[in-house]
Amino acid sequence: MTTIADIGKKLGVSKSTVSKALNNAPDISETLRKTIVETAVEMGYSKLRQNKKEPKKLCILVENMEYTNELRFGYHIIIGFRQLAEPAGYQVDVIPLDHKMQRATGFDAFMLQGHYLGAFILGMSLNDPWMNDLQTSRTPAVLYDNYVPENPSTCYVGIDNTEGMNLAMKYLKNLGHRSIGYLSTSLGSYITQVRHRAFFSALKKNGLKSDPRLAGISLYVSECVQKHLPKLLEQGVTAIICCHDQMANAAMVQCREAGLRVPEDISIVGFDDLPMCAYTEPPLTTVRQDQLLLGKCGYNALESLLNEVPVGTLLLHASLVERESCAEVQQWRKK
Amino acid sequence: MTTIADIGKKLGVSKSTVSKALNNAPDISETLRKTIVETAVEMGYSKLRQNKKEPKKLCILVENMEYTNELRFGYHIIIGFRQLAEPAGYQVDVIPLDHKMQRATGFDAFMLQGHYLGAFILGMSLNDPWMNDLQTSRTPAVLYDNYVPENPSTCYVGIDNTEGMNLAMKYLKNLGHRSIGYLSTSLGSYITQVRHRAFFSALKKNGLKSDPRLAGISLYVSECVQKHLPKLLEQGVTAIICCHDQMANAAMVQCREAGLRVPEDISIVGFDDLPMCAYTEPPLTTVRQDQLLLGKCGYNALESLLNEVPVGTLLLHASLVERESCAEVQQWRKK
Repeated sequence: MTTIADIGKKLGVSKSTVSKALNNAPDISETLRKTIVETAVEMGYSKLRQNKKEPKKLCILVENMEYTNELRFGYHIIIGFRQLAEPAGYQVDVIPLDHKMQRATGFDAFMLQGHYLGAFILGMSLNDPWMNDLQTSRTPAVLYDNYVPENPSTCYVGIDNTEGMNLAMKYLKNLGHRSIGYLSTSLGSYITQVRHRAFFSALKKNGLKSDPRLAGISLYVSECVQKHLPKLLEQGVTAIICCHDQMANAAMVQCREAGLRVPEDISIVGFDDLPMCAYTEPPLTTVRQDQLLLGKCGYNALESLLNEVPVGTLLLHASLVERESCAEVQQWRKK
Repeated sequence: MTTIADIGKKLGVSKSTVSKALNNAPDISETLRKTIVETAVEMGYSKLRQNKKEPKKLCILVENMEYTNELRFGYHIIIGFRQLAEPAGYQVDVIPLDHKMQRATGFDAFMLQGHYLGAFILGMSLNDPWMNDLQTSRTPAVLYDNYVPENPSTCYVGIDNTEGMNLAMKYLKNLGHRSIGYLSTSLGSYITQVRHRAFFSALKKNGLKSDPRLAGISLYVSECVQKHLPKLLEQGVTAIICCHDQMANAAMVQCREAGLRVPEDISIVGFDDLPMCAYTEPPLTTVRQDQLLLGKCGYNALESLLNEVPVGTLLLHASLVERESCAEVQQWRKK
């Protein structure tokens, strides 16, 4: 096990200098501090011995996700995490994340420098610089909706999207739908890839005809709806599952503009259950991700990793929230 | 919410009779007690209000798995569970399970009668009577290596078999193997199905040729090895992954009898890391399931369900234990 003395020896500085750098003392130059932290990480000194005067610290790193008020998706995820972490004695810092700061410092160095024992990471995409660091990092990290294989220090937390997609598909099938389409933004995140695969596996599981043309994929929501919705309708689709609620809402707007009634002429299902779903026109039937529970799962997974139980995947059961955007398929459209 | 009074009213008996039956008082006939318990379950009275004098109780139900001493697979799973449950104030009863008792009483009724708040179930197969009950039961149940979709009262706990299979496949590929086979007992359990799928997805992920004939499946280990090992060798396979360690050991014995050296002529990988793996001839390289950690995960998942966090899947990271049953593919066999 690497000690402060080992790090000092390697760099030719005293133990107290190393200690000062790792404890963010003000009388160390920024350059020297950075060198010492990076060397410490390189040598596997990934866990600071806890300073008794300092509270135990965790961080929630957030990117591509709003969380500042209760109508935002991230808000209750953070609350759920803190509801378990703070009574257990942890200080929880919420830190916005961007590519620039990821490029400036490696993940392990960032965590060591901030004296964080572990991180809960929200909203990262597959091309974030730290996704590379996380393949080999040694600091416990729980990723919401992102999976890092084969690294026992990381865990993926999310809802069971396969189960959720299947609930939506079964529901539509019970309403008589036999030709069901899918609309998705680009497959650049782990979760869009998972849901895309889940769509085709749910078609198969429910004995419905499968065809790659049943999935319309574009980078942006508006582009996706404009380009692919007409194509799905041409194929005789009577119901559409969408990769998320914004897409579903855009699809409903586009359907109305094309003179189609939702749900009488076409059924639409979303994913996520954002607060807006109760207020869309019509209110949206959707697969629910319970944000408060996701936050609690995030903490439970991180607590496991901190206790050296290398949990890799933790999935919440999905549920379907039935509102008014789906109806029985019209008689004349039944095959 | 159903009360004791509701149950009494439905059956035309007093509240105190219902209470006596649910609390296993001796002055109630067995027939009446059974009727009351079953009615209580039917009416959704799934959770006993905790009697303050009685400890909180959980049970571990075990079938098809040895656990009586530390050389048995189930032993450390149970220890791991108890290491977390008992300090948290739970009494843990370990109960052997068989089809007869499952047919005699429904799962919810069994749990209610025993005053168990939740169960950790080991070794159940897909044709166990309670697998049906678990589709709709309301008592928290964590299943090791079994998955019940769409019931928020159940959770599946195990290692990440897809990750484990991929670790084995990558390892063999790095040793130069390009034609890799698979031996499995019948696909009658959830976990043999998962590993079978994981084998083909790992072939694909590693860019290796895939062919249904690369998997040999039979009901029994000895039958499987005798029937399918020669066929795999005929196909030019240079390495074999087995569905579990017993199969791997049988395959190694069979190879030697056929005049082949392990690992010089053929590499063998197991699954599970049973205690015997260190003592087989040669010691077996295998994908590890850490039993103690699985037990801890079982408790953590059950604790989540008891706190109304409906965790559905909790997977431990897999790891590969390298021993002596694999070697670089021989030059003349490289293609």
